[in-house]
Amino acid sequence: MFSTLDTPSVLIDLDVAEANIHKYQAYCDTHGLKLRPHVKTHKLPALAKYQIAQGAVGITCQKISEAEAMIAEGGIDDVLITYNILGDAKTARLRALSEKVRLSVVADSSFVAEGLSKAFMGASEPLEVLVECNTGADRCGVAAPADAADLAKRISDLPGLNFAGLMTFPAFGGFAEAADWLAEAKEMIEAEGLEVRKVSSGGSQDMWQAHLAKPVTEHRIGTYVYNDRSLVSRGNCTWQECALTVLATVVSVPSATHAIIDAGSKVLTSDLFGLHGHGHVLGRNDLSIDQLSEEHGRLVSDGPISLAVGDRLRIVPNHACVVANMLDQVECVRGNEIIGPVPVAARGQVW
Amino acid sequence: MFSTLDTPSVLIDLDVAEANIHKYQAYCDTHGLKLRPHVKTHKLPALAKYQIAQGAVGITCQKISEAEAMIAEGGIDDVLITYNILGDAKTARLRALSEKVRLSVVADSSFVAEGLSKAFMGASEPLEVLVECNTGADRCGVAAPADAADLAKRISDLPGLNFAGLMTFPAFGGFAEAADWLAEAKEMIEAEGLEVRKVSSGGSQDMWQAHLAKPVTEHRIGTYVYNDRSLVSRGNCTWQECALTVLATVVSVPSATHAIIDAGSKVLTSDLFGLHGHGHVLGRNDLSIDQLSEEHGRLVSDGPISLAVGDRLRIVPNHACVVANMLDQVECVRGNEIIGPVPVAARGQVW
Repeated sequence: MFSTLDTPSVLIDLDVAEANIHKYQAYCDTHGLKLRPHVKTHKLPALAKYQIAQGAVGITCQKISEAEAMIAEGGIDDVLITYNILGDAKTARLRALSEKVRLSVVADSSFVAEGLSKAFMGASEPLEVLVECNTGADRCGVAAPADAADLAKRISDLPGLNFAGLMTFPAFGGFAEAADWLAEAKEMIEAEGLEVRKVSSGGSQDMWQAHLAKPVTEHRIGTYVYNDRSLVSRGNCTWQECALTVLATVVSVPSATHAIIDAGSKVLTSDLFGLHGHGHVLGRNDLSIDQLSEEHGRLVSDGPISLAVGDRLRIVPNHACVVANMLDQVECVRGNEIIGPVPVAARGQVW
Repeated sequence: MFSTLDTPSVLIDLDVAEANIHKYQAYCDTHGLKLRPHVKTHKLPALAKYQIAQGAVGITCQKISEAEAMIAEGGIDDVLITYNILGDAKTARLRALSEKVRLSVVADSSFVAEGLSKAFMGASEPLEVLVECNTGADRCGVAAPADAADLAKRISDLPGLNFAGLMTFPAFGGFAEAADWLAEAKEMIEAEGLEVRKVSSGGSQDMWQAHLAKPVTEHRIGTYVYNDRSLVSRGNCTWQECALTVLATVVSVPSATHAIIDAGSKVLTSDLFGLHGHGHVLGRNDLSIDQLSEEHGRLVSDGPISLAVGDRLRIVPNHACVVANMLDQVECVRGNEIIGPVPVAARGQVW
């Protein structure tokens, strides 16, 4: 199995990834949703450009450095950074970035908005800023629709900024709740005479319900391009639709019911996402990966493990995005054909 | 707090790391144990050379690529790779590596030993091979002392290889159990007329009991150089002895009892090591980090959180080794003084 590739390797089946991109773009088109993929899943400029070519309106990044890496080779001209950017060093980089692409960001406090304003005073174009809303996930975001209206007003009053709309990352199963919240905020903001041009929502775990979050105009989603065990477990896709797999080799079969592979937490990561075990071995529903150390994964079976040292396996990880962040390169394939390695341009970008 | 450094950053306090190195070297010296640090924790050639200068007999690596990265700048001449190396591509690299340093590896099956032999046939020096023993951790390793004796004999018979001794990674709390196992294996092997020159044990979680694993001659340990929340929780060290911290900024305070920082699983990782929460905020025993997404960490407090957007915090992660693997560089400091960034030379090496 891919005998010329070293293990562990992260394989990307481009046929599968492209089909996933087409399928979700079609879903968004059907429902009149703009699609703004989150590149955190693949971190590959080539796939981002493919997403845009199929109809995506631009990309989502989480950090400035991720955006810088993604746009470096050109061809991507619309970036939303869904993160509170603060501190003079970062806001200066944000302004430099704004001179290269159509840029928008979010804020959930006056403190953040004021920092952005300070950096963008005198810019040729004002910075587009969306208000981040906590519609139930209890991560970032203003607490209530009235707070969103207050911050929208503040942003529109600050020099160098344009109020662009609302942004949320809903709780799992929370699209309907988000819809009510956002509709109320939108109404309050419009009552102030401000236009809410964009309402951006996101999330993968209930991806086929994204259209329920009206008045949302665009959906941000990352994992759909690769899919993973968490999305299979929620019924969003099949194993055949998982584009990212980890190729691993059995390095030890120390007992009749367990075996050790050369993929540990340095490749598969410790993300559980509420699941038991650390990934799914394709074609071996009887196996579970019950334990990871950094370079070892332990496979266990209730019956005979039927594996030999040197056997190769493909594993669908619990969470594809974090796996794509672990190695400097991924190996692209199409079915059984090896296409070649690609550097993960935006890997490790946290600033 | 380190206002010129961007966040999130991984800080290494060299004063603390050096003191940790001295302290554990002294422990090993007292007990007549050779110390062979596992470089997976820091992945920095400079710290490895410091460990050797203080008395370590060489280094431990888990993968060939890790060893290659560590020796590239010179000054390290003794490497043990505690991993079953298999496949022609890897064994050829192993042979090339053996021409640059004094190299030893492990094997827990004839299959692995035979692959090593094939690659080292005709080498100027035979490869030193230790038999990996499962003394209770149920990861890799031969199952019983008699199996160790059989494999030792097989290794000593194979061209290109020298049987060098025994190696184990004991279960937590399992040094005494390992001692009995290893003593029995040693006796059986010596009865065959073979010399057991080295008995190598390892582990951090009960690091101050390492001397109990007689007939062990050397101890492999990684985390002691930095320490972490897992080692504090087991009483092995204090917060003041934690050399690796993550510097993070509060980016949102969305409610009176929770705050969001810019350090998520891309820095802190999802490793739990049996702990609750994702790290310890220095100086704030009242806080817990109850949730991570890739770029966000959520802090919660029972009382008022008393944090403002822009505040900086230092976090001791659950597991230092995996954190050191996430970013391309760490920031070295001594107390409050910034020394400068250092590239993490052996980051991401899994082959």
